[in-house]
Amino acid sequence: MAKFFVPKSHPRYWSLYYRHKLEEALEKGILATAGLIAHGRGEAFDYLIGETTIEPAEKAMKAAIAKLLLAEHPVLSVNGNVAALVPKETIELAKALNAKLEINLFYRTEERVRAIAEELKKYDPEIELLGINPTKRIPNLESERGKVDENGIWKADVVVVPLEDGDRTEALVKMGKFVITVDLNPLSRSARMADITIVDNIVRAYPRMIELAKEMRELPRKELEKIVAEYDNGKILSDVLIHMKSRLEKLAEEGVWRRENL
Amino acid sequence: MAKFFVPKSHPRYWSLYYRHKLEEALEKGILATAGLIAHGRGEAFDYLIGETTIEPAEKAMKAAIAKLLLAEHPVLSVNGNVAALVPKETIELAKALNAKLEINLFYRTEERVRAIAEELKKYDPEIELLGINPTKRIPNLESERGKVDENGIWKADVVVVPLEDGDRTEALVKMGKFVITVDLNPLSRSARMADITIVDNIVRAYPRMIELAKEMRELPRKELEKIVAEYDNGKILSDVLIHMKSRLEKLAEEGVWRRENL
Repeated sequence: MAKFFVPKSHPRYWSLYYRHKLEEALEKGILATAGLIAHGRGEAFDYLIGETTIEPAEKAMKAAIAKLLLAEHPVLSVNGNVAALVPKETIELAKALNAKLEINLFYRTEERVRAIAEELKKYDPEIELLGINPTKRIPNLESERGKVDENGIWKADVVVVPLEDGDRTEALVKMGKFVITVDLNPLSRSARMADITIVDNIVRAYPRMIELAKEMRELPRKELEKIVAEYDNGKILSDVLIHMKSRLEKLAEEGVWRRENL
Repeated sequence: MAKFFVPKSHPRYWSLYYRHKLEEALEKGILATAGLIAHGRGEAFDYLIGETTIEPAEKAMKAAIAKLLLAEHPVLSVNGNVAALVPKETIELAKALNAKLEINLFYRTEERVRAIAEELKKYDPEIELLGINPTKRIPNLESERGKVDENGIWKADVVVVPLEDGDRTEALVKMGKFVITVDLNPLSRSARMADITIVDNIVRAYPRMIELAKEMRELPRKELEKIVAEYDNGKILSDVLIHMKSRLEKLAEEGVWRRENL
């Protein structure tokens, strides 16, 4: 794999940087090719959002952190895209929340599980990783796709499944888990089915969630409970769609043809 | 590569079918990994459009075919994504238009050029393919990215560059070429810089353009010229944005949370 050589002054520097990370992850066996296509979908929606954390995402993150701090058995799920984009932040977030980490793959192969475990251990060789030898199954999913760890997602009350497949998100909701997702597509099945949907790029969301976890962990339970109770995921998703709509409306009015910058 | 086994009754059959085509193309060396990410971006915008050919795209296709039928040296450019998705249709469209085909790659390697040529020749072993040994260069692009065929894009008056990089589209426009692109992202640099922008999925656009070429080639020049003269790409792009906007607005009003289907 060629080194990443794009100068930081390039207007699309970060987009190209994370693309390169994904291509590296494909080479290392961390990512399935479907993960690259999924990343492209995310890029498109991020572009529509404006490549920034919008207010509805900030509200969703606050509610998510409150719920996670109240949880008895919080678990963060890690897949190939997550390991490629935010390996360090995933570990930090789990620590800030006292949550467990579980490797949980849609296209599960033992090689990919191993490659992801290796990647995470680069950032903390002592980190406990679940999902290496999962013995339980999520009901209503075919065998490989339903495997979960008895001490992880199986017994979790609150799970974070970022960049997750819609059928799996839905199956977890049906199991009675409280499901939090991070997904740039507000219309995806995952986004529609989760209890809390953070429509943001995970490379912005996870660092912000780490901050929030550190800020909010001193709050009284009553206050955390209030934040969760007042949260309305349906309204948040509509607010995201309205944000995108307004942006498109403005661009349509101004015109985009032969325009240098948007 | 595993065989494609999804039943036709699957709600996402076509999306999964073309994803599989792309993954096959990656294995055959036709596609660069960046092509998979680009495909994902396209999927997202197609989803917003509604996975159907919308009126502004139909208008753009008519103007494009009129311009191509009037051209002296029309050329259709072929890259990895095009060869993966519409190899047969590309050849048919070139024939219906009396246009030349040129293999033209952003990440050019001799192996990829060969793999694409092989793929196209499966559909017509006699087909003439330019771009195998390009000797000319588009000004203002670094060496590999600027290579074009003396008898193809170099001398063309009208070029079709579907799923093209923005810098290259812009460089072709600056060379004085009349540039037609097919791009699902109405905000991409290619979409903004081209003379005619067809915002549609190429798997729908090319078959429709073949039909249009056959229908329109009997039209008098005057009539073709009128179609081109009346075409307004700025308005078409705004119409596409308004279409997407209206769809998001409706979804925001109806609400999407926990909704089975959109």
